[in-house]
Amino acid sequence: MRHQLDEPALDWRVKGFWQPDAPVSDPAFAAAGHSLFGGAFTWPVLAVRRSAVAHNVATMAEFCARHGFSFAPHGKTSMAPSLLTAQLSAGAWAITMATANQVLACRALGVPRVLLANELLDPVPLRWLAGELDRGFEALFFVDSVAGVEAIDAALADRPAGAPLRVLVELGFPGGRAGCRTVAQVVEVAEAVAATSRVRLDGVAGYEGGLPDGVAVSAYLRRLRTAATELARRRLVGPEVLVSAGGSAWFDLVAEELGGAWLTGHDLRVVLRSGAYVTHDHGFYAEHTPFRRIPGQGSLDAALELWAQVTSTPEPGLAIVGMGKRDAPYDEGLPVPLRIRRRSGELQPGTGLVVSRLNDHHGYLAVPPGVALYPGDLVCFGISHPCTAFDKWRAMPVVDDAHTVVDVLRTYF
Amino acid sequence: MRHQLDEPALDWRVKGFWQPDAPVSDPAFAAAGHSLFGGAFTWPVLAVRRSAVAHNVATMAEFCARHGFSFAPHGKTSMAPSLLTAQLSAGAWAITMATANQVLACRALGVPRVLLANELLDPVPLRWLAGELDRGFEALFFVDSVAGVEAIDAALADRPAGAPLRVLVELGFPGGRAGCRTVAQVVEVAEAVAATSRVRLDGVAGYEGGLPDGVAVSAYLRRLRTAATELARRRLVGPEVLVSAGGSAWFDLVAEELGGAWLTGHDLRVVLRSGAYVTHDHGFYAEHTPFRRIPGQGSLDAALELWAQVTSTPEPGLAIVGMGKRDAPYDEGLPVPLRIRRRSGELQPGTGLVVSRLNDHHGYLAVPPGVALYPGDLVCFGISHPCTAFDKWRAMPVVDDAHTVVDVLRTYF
Repeated sequence: MRHQLDEPALDWRVKGFWQPDAPVSDPAFAAAGHSLFGGAFTWPVLAVRRSAVAHNVATMAEFCARHGFSFAPHGKTSMAPSLLTAQLSAGAWAITMATANQVLACRALGVPRVLLANELLDPVPLRWLAGELDRGFEALFFVDSVAGVEAIDAALADRPAGAPLRVLVELGFPGGRAGCRTVAQVVEVAEAVAATSRVRLDGVAGYEGGLPDGVAVSAYLRRLRTAATELARRRLVGPEVLVSAGGSAWFDLVAEELGGAWLTGHDLRVVLRSGAYVTHDHGFYAEHTPFRRIPGQGSLDAALELWAQVTSTPEPGLAIVGMGKRDAPYDEGLPVPLRIRRRSGELQPGTGLVVSRLNDHHGYLAVPPGVALYPGDLVCFGISHPCTAFDKWRAMPVVDDAHTVVDVLRTYF
Repeated sequence: MRHQLDEPALDWRVKGFWQPDAPVSDPAFAAAGHSLFGGAFTWPVLAVRRSAVAHNVATMAEFCARHGFSFAPHGKTSMAPSLLTAQLSAGAWAITMATANQVLACRALGVPRVLLANELLDPVPLRWLAGELDRGFEALFFVDSVAGVEAIDAALADRPAGAPLRVLVELGFPGGRAGCRTVAQVVEVAEAVAATSRVRLDGVAGYEGGLPDGVAVSAYLRRLRTAATELARRRLVGPEVLVSAGGSAWFDLVAEELGGAWLTGHDLRVVLRSGAYVTHDHGFYAEHTPFRRIPGQGSLDAALELWAQVTSTPEPGLAIVGMGKRDAPYDEGLPVPLRIRRRSGELQPGTGLVVSRLNDHHGYLAVPPGVALYPGDLVCFGISHPCTAFDKWRAMPVVDDAHTVVDVLRTYF
């Protein structure tokens, strides 16, 4: 897979970096040994801790190996070629993506196999995908309706004979997102697939992330298992059956409910699709990671640090920091103050500081009595929800544990 | 100002566009006469209506001219060189920005004068800015504390003699964001500026956007006027006094309170900083635009259209569309369904459709009885809050009223 791209160098286009002069290539920048605090950056900047990412990638690879799962980490989290490369190098079977544009990015980057965890009904990328399959690309995507299967079939009507598009029937749940609501509907969609030579059914897939608790997740995963069993019994799938589920909040229950050799007479491949694990966080996933329930099987380390400067301390109990909705996730919790870095370089804990609100480029920091913040201080924040952190940055410094830059991470949203 | 940049061409990196083959330059793409629905795009895509932008740019230029205001439209809304160029061509006195990186982008793009509507305390961009002033760049930024002025002074301590940095004292309000809380504090900060030759005071600035209603806004604007008057009386500003306020929600009250020649004996320049007006919206600003109170002075036209495809209709009353938090603003209201485009190309009103929720790449659309949506249909959405729409797209097609592409708009966040 290609990691180094024909990118423009680092210059004024890349926020967080401070490059007012001649552009610098990513490798040259990474080789210069910059400190995060040495003048090559301005604030805010989102830094990636290399050691934490390496730990997380290894941890989930081990988890999947232990349970006999194939891993298709959700690449939409980062859209970062360097992270996809690391995930594939650690043994990932495929990369999961969410949109046609993201599949195209994977193809351009040389990812050999993609699981598009979504319906795909646009004729233009459908025809492109069919052509790429003929050229050796591997891809699967979801279907959840007879109308959808017919639309795919129609989009390929003029295509000369070639490999069929490979799909999984998506099973959802009442009140949920996409996906068939019943196993009977799964069978109906599978029969529509069987009726056309342009599409081939490889299995079933679901997403448990929207369910309220573990009891509901387990029950849902058992329905997914029932759906796969029913398709196998009716010979609507071939000898190899793919079953996919699992974000970053319930993979312990996926192991419980979908682990083992439960599909007698078939070659079963269970594919986990966790994405947020790659950097983890200090918010939603810190609270919801399954490793809190199964600490013996591993742990994750929050890898993203958002550094911002105190620009104003306008009244007691309030500091304004120079970061906002353009820089930090705010959909699953606000940034979490971790540390203060004084202008002298001295580090202090951020105990008691709380982000109360964000504007586009301002953060409101509630400051408890006894804590003093001054204009010019830096504050290091953890984030909540990696997916909406990465998409706010086109390039990010990767740092070692001493905050020395060791790489430049590019994203493609 | 430079509008065409040394950009990579349109290829797999640019979502919404569908460019799987050889890269195409922006001008070549714009000249090809593509329809939005002709296969050069996939979904979702965010399109900019050229006629609406042209109307809005002209409308606000006329409003400022009518009231004798200078206009520094807030460029952080779009970070789009083509829109900044249009705003400057329509007579804007400066471009407003929110961060050091954005000021650097303006300098690289050739914007001659920038108003940084924020405190700037990072020594690295401060020293750079001082050097650029010596090379003919014009820039002003905000200060709101004696400590801040001292930090700026310290950052420039090693600098050889040159033009002073130009600042405005920011006046805020209790419970608000940055800015001095009282006129007495404004005077105190102005005196700190007067004590150093490295910084020069040009006036006062404020932002009324966080206030609850028009009564509070008017009272705040009168305090801003009092602050300017007090600085002039104490000779803490020169003969030319700059007073700046005004986002996109209260510029009618700015005209009422800050219009006219109220600063006797001084050359007064009132600078309005509206940003969101450039594309307007179908949500927050549709509701809050001052032109609802002063319809005789103009109107704005919502310029952004988000097109997404129905991917699933899994249960009665629910359709899933292929757009989410990666594509649409969700901080000041969810996208507003405007129209349905059937696979046949037929257009129908989106009456009764409501977006109830977004995931990263999925939108939940509540469908009322009597309205039928089918997998493959397109839905055109208006958005709420332009600032958090632009920052989700690196390139956007600009279309005429027949949805033929006439330009490619690039953003630099």
